[in-house]
Amino acid sequence: MKMYAEYQALVEHSLAPMLESLGYIPERLLEAMRYSLEAGGKRLRPVMLLAACEMAGGDAELALPFACAIEMIHTYSLIHDDLPAMDNDDLRRGKPTNHKVFGEDLAILAGDGLLNAAAELMARTAVEMADTRGIRALEIIMRHAGVTGMIAGQTRDVLSEGEKPREDLVSYIHAHKTADLLEAPMEAGLALAGADEHQIKAAHDYGLHLGLAFQMTDDLLDVIGDAALLGKNTGMDAALDKMTWVALKGVEGTEKDAAEQVGLAIAELDKLPYDTAFFRDLAQSMTSRKN
Amino acid sequence: MKMYAEYQALVEHSLAPMLESLGYIPERLLEAMRYSLEAGGKRLRPVMLLAACEMAGGDAELALPFACAIEMIHTYSLIHDDLPAMDNDDLRRGKPTNHKVFGEDLAILAGDGLLNAAAELMARTAVEMADTRGIRALEIIMRHAGVTGMIAGQTRDVLSEGEKPREDLVSYIHAHKTADLLEAPMEAGLALAGADEHQIKAAHDYGLHLGLAFQMTDDLLDVIGDAALLGKNTGMDAALDKMTWVALKGVEGTEKDAAEQVGLAIAELDKLPYDTAFFRDLAQSMTSRKN
Repeated sequence: MKMYAEYQALVEHSLAPMLESLGYIPERLLEAMRYSLEAGGKRLRPVMLLAACEMAGGDAELALPFACAIEMIHTYSLIHDDLPAMDNDDLRRGKPTNHKVFGEDLAILAGDGLLNAAAELMARTAVEMADTRGIRALEIIMRHAGVTGMIAGQTRDVLSEGEKPREDLVSYIHAHKTADLLEAPMEAGLALAGADEHQIKAAHDYGLHLGLAFQMTDDLLDVIGDAALLGKNTGMDAALDKMTWVALKGVEGTEKDAAEQVGLAIAELDKLPYDTAFFRDLAQSMTSRKN
Repeated sequence: MKMYAEYQALVEHSLAPMLESLGYIPERLLEAMRYSLEAGGKRLRPVMLLAACEMAGGDAELALPFACAIEMIHTYSLIHDDLPAMDNDDLRRGKPTNHKVFGEDLAILAGDGLLNAAAELMARTAVEMADTRGIRALEIIMRHAGVTGMIAGQTRDVLSEGEKPREDLVSYIHAHKTADLLEAPMEAGLALAGADEHQIKAAHDYGLHLGLAFQMTDDLLDVIGDAALLGKNTGMDAALDKMTWVALKGVEGTEKDAAEQVGLAIAELDKLPYDTAFFRDLAQSMTSRKN
């Protein structure tokens, strides 16, 4: 297995070539998609997919299109979330948001394009593969990204603005809006390595707890974080009356719960017959991150 | 093979159950997706997929999730096209557009949701199938819907408003914005029936010519059609300085070119070793339609 930074570099260098491998894309559309796709970030989801695949004895090279696809899905969700009709954000990762640069029409199309490109890229790869691992991974990723997963969480988030935070609702939003897209790379990475359903279940549960810890930390950073390090404005959740864990439990309560989720994530790793050090370290880094 | 209306009824009754079979979807999101999905229309694309599959000896029951998926993709593209930042349409198929009823945020999410649901539904079906026909059909449909296909055409259309119509540009927009999603059901239907690449190529070319005839007729109806029969306002293309065939060739020139495309579509059918009467009739009906 490689270091986080090595997987990250592999993803970084593959995103644009993978997109362009699909064929001729109108210049302005490609530009808009690349603008957000190449705006940096930690590449957490694709790194997890590659590392999970290699941890389980799979081939990271073969998993690379699926890793890039999940980053495309994450990126499309950010572009659409930032739109004026949604969160109306001007700044993302320290840069103007997609619609600020390309206009709302292109931002909508760039988002649609990235979601479609993700499915297309995985499908093309799955057609080339001699067995069913590719289509299994594609199904896992689209299901977690979809109307029972990430989009469901995003919808409940949008609809709940102004409502009084309730634990069941905040949990639902966090489990779907955030954790679904951290479960997907764990499950898909293992599926691509040919792991069995028992192992995939443990990987799913690790992703869920990691995702909850991740989102609780995100909520904390919006309150106590540094806008310069974050590359986005803070205090936005409170301004929009968002359903956050901090609104429910306060800063200290959220810190405690996030630490508990990290512990639960790590406990899941014991169910996997692999060297899980990479994912133990990753879970431990969740609550100390600054962006 | 069945009659057009039988295939249409099969699709009509399957769309909502297919969507709901994905699992728990937040009520308001499901409602927004169903609103546009069930707003009627001719169901041309899914009917073509089912008929193409049966014509080539395949099983329409097995093809049904793919047929519903392509209608979901068509529907999402209409929802996003109608948004204020795009064509800003208030009326679609005689009903208020999605964002007029559910708000822009839900309309964006409903569109994203339908696109994702289409890929998810096909992926789940492909996983259940014992061979590679499902993943081939999924790949065909996502490619035609994507950034080298329908989204590419839509982007060039959006970017060209106000430009002087040029034949190469109008052809590109029509070939991708419209024809790509008529090629896809022909190719995917045949792929699901296990047809070879030579047959799939002829099916593609039929879809291309049919698509061009369809779009030319659409452009004509916007000028000489009846708003009540169409269920949408006429004269919109001219108002928006859209790239249309009528702007390029006039009404009579467009009628002549549409008839020629119908002839080219029918000629492709001779390359297929099946009873192609269904698709001959369909092509002949293209230029006489009123909506």
